[in-house]
Amino acid sequence: MGKASIRDVANLAGVSIATVSQVLNGKGERFSDATKQKVLAARDEVGYVPNASARSLKRGTTTMIGVIVPSLRNPYFGDIVQRMQEVLPENVSLQIMTAETSTADQTVETLVAAGAQGLVVASQLSNPPAVARSLRRRGIAMVVLENHDELEDADAVYASDTQGGRKAAEHLIALGHKHVVLLGNQVYTDNLQYRTASFKETMAEAGVKVSEVATRNLTKHAGRAAAMAVSVTHATAAFALNDELAIGVISGLNAIGIKVPEQMSVIGYDDTDYAEFFRPALTTIEQPVWDIAKAALDSVLKRIAESDAPRQVSAFDANLVVRESTAPLA
Amino acid sequence: MGKASIRDVANLAGVSIATVSQVLNGKGERFSDATKQKVLAARDEVGYVPNASARSLKRGTTTMIGVIVPSLRNPYFGDIVQRMQEVLPENVSLQIMTAETSTADQTVETLVAAGAQGLVVASQLSNPPAVARSLRRRGIAMVVLENHDELEDADAVYASDTQGGRKAAEHLIALGHKHVVLLGNQVYTDNLQYRTASFKETMAEAGVKVSEVATRNLTKHAGRAAAMAVSVTHATAAFALNDELAIGVISGLNAIGIKVPEQMSVIGYDDTDYAEFFRPALTTIEQPVWDIAKAALDSVLKRIAESDAPRQVSAFDANLVVRESTAPLA
Repeated sequence: MGKASIRDVANLAGVSIATVSQVLNGKGERFSDATKQKVLAARDEVGYVPNASARSLKRGTTTMIGVIVPSLRNPYFGDIVQRMQEVLPENVSLQIMTAETSTADQTVETLVAAGAQGLVVASQLSNPPAVARSLRRRGIAMVVLENHDELEDADAVYASDTQGGRKAAEHLIALGHKHVVLLGNQVYTDNLQYRTASFKETMAEAGVKVSEVATRNLTKHAGRAAAMAVSVTHATAAFALNDELAIGVISGLNAIGIKVPEQMSVIGYDDTDYAEFFRPALTTIEQPVWDIAKAALDSVLKRIAESDAPRQVSAFDANLVVRESTAPLA
Repeated sequence: MGKASIRDVANLAGVSIATVSQVLNGKGERFSDATKQKVLAARDEVGYVPNASARSLKRGTTTMIGVIVPSLRNPYFGDIVQRMQEVLPENVSLQIMTAETSTADQTVETLVAAGAQGLVVASQLSNPPAVARSLRRRGIAMVVLENHDELEDADAVYASDTQGGRKAAEHLIALGHKHVVLLGNQVYTDNLQYRTASFKETMAEAGVKVSEVATRNLTKHAGRAAAMAVSVTHATAAFALNDELAIGVISGLNAIGIKVPEQMSVIGYDDTDYAEFFRPALTTIEQPVWDIAKAALDSVLKRIAESDAPRQVSAFDANLVVRESTAPLA
């Protein structure tokens, strides 16, 4: 069978090409159900598939936004993507890809080549200002989910990591801890650098000792594997760089007989749903993920509409949420 | 500035169009770093963006697969998508969309119109055999993540829900429970119908009473909200239709002073990562999500390559994983 055309559909259904086009594009309200059924049956009968490339060239109505996140196994990024899907305007489509730091730059180019007119990037780029400059020259919009002062060519949406790191430190200081562990990745993204720098600075000012335990990534499994290393520091509290890691290290500490928060306090970061449902419920730093996702989508669409608008930066507060996993030093 | 062409890039860089094309398409290994830098700088300087539509028409090298899942907030589906991304062959791209039952059919058409040559569908379609037949007539491949005997026009990859429901029932029977609650959605997808039907049948054969408590969806929050309704049945065990619901109901039961598993056993479904890390660690039915995701991707690509191949069905076992949330009837 040769490639069927819209004319073939119209001929078989006994209607005009315009009618077929309107019915297949979901604009056929004014036609009877019988007509619509006839068109759909004819479409299937001749095996008609609209040529997506020709269609997008001709109509130019769909805006494609590329979204790059480090992992969909971390509920923080699952929530970001889910929220964007839920508030997606008609005629905007998302192309979602996962990329770690080593592949993020290439993923940007893959999405541009696939036709993305804008990008929302949560993964760490090798050199964010250079990538932003290159995209701007090419008329591609980019919003990064990080706070980076030199990123003058990209819009930014983030919850302040400097504030979040400081609030985590202040909470542990107020509870009387004198020696804490900073638990996380060895290789820090820009966001994590801000988060850890302000945590350490605040601790240094208060004269609290900070030990560091590196993990191979920011997952529950990596957190559990680090429990023994955390325990041998003899610190009385730990700051896990995300909730996944906090859940993992608490699980690992329990397995070696160390109770949280009685024998060690643990504070996480993100306030994913699991922070609330885990036991002990996690004390954590909330990033307002729903607001961040919505703002990022709005921002990239606005940039596509007005490429010369001033730089947009949406900075949200990072908030301390106190639950059960932290306690005063005994 | 008018729309820049690849010729503009070549002129500015002082190289041939073929050189520009190879460098920008990642096939420039044989050129010096200096040449590559010159090309990239020229691309940015003139603001060249490949025309995605023309490019895909001409080269035809990228296969686009549409993936439809109910929600990326459920880690089971996050894992499915993550795994597909990780094993994705070069020149295959995924377009991921979320859709509930009410929007799944329309989402199929959106992805077809966007150029998807194949679909992996985890969401519930209104009439799966009809959608499958229509897609087949149009030469679009579809793999559904469900067990459905009438789906002769779609390939299928699934872990047996009939087996899973039965194993959950047999576990609770073996523990001596005489009255159990079936906890879940009011509106069942095909998968959930198989799961609940075999659970109830197995219980009926063993003379165990089954009460049912409906939830508005399959989330942690819905599970927590159902705890009181579960407790008033005076059942001694509950089968939650997924792990998210199990985590939620355990949290809700604890909040009203009912201990799991001492006063009530709870068994989940899926065996997501959280089942292992939650406390009490969940007894659950494992669906081998990584294998399912890989098999679904393989299957849809094979169908695209050989549209007339016999129907492919990959049925995996659903396995009981016993942890801490179930206990013998006291």
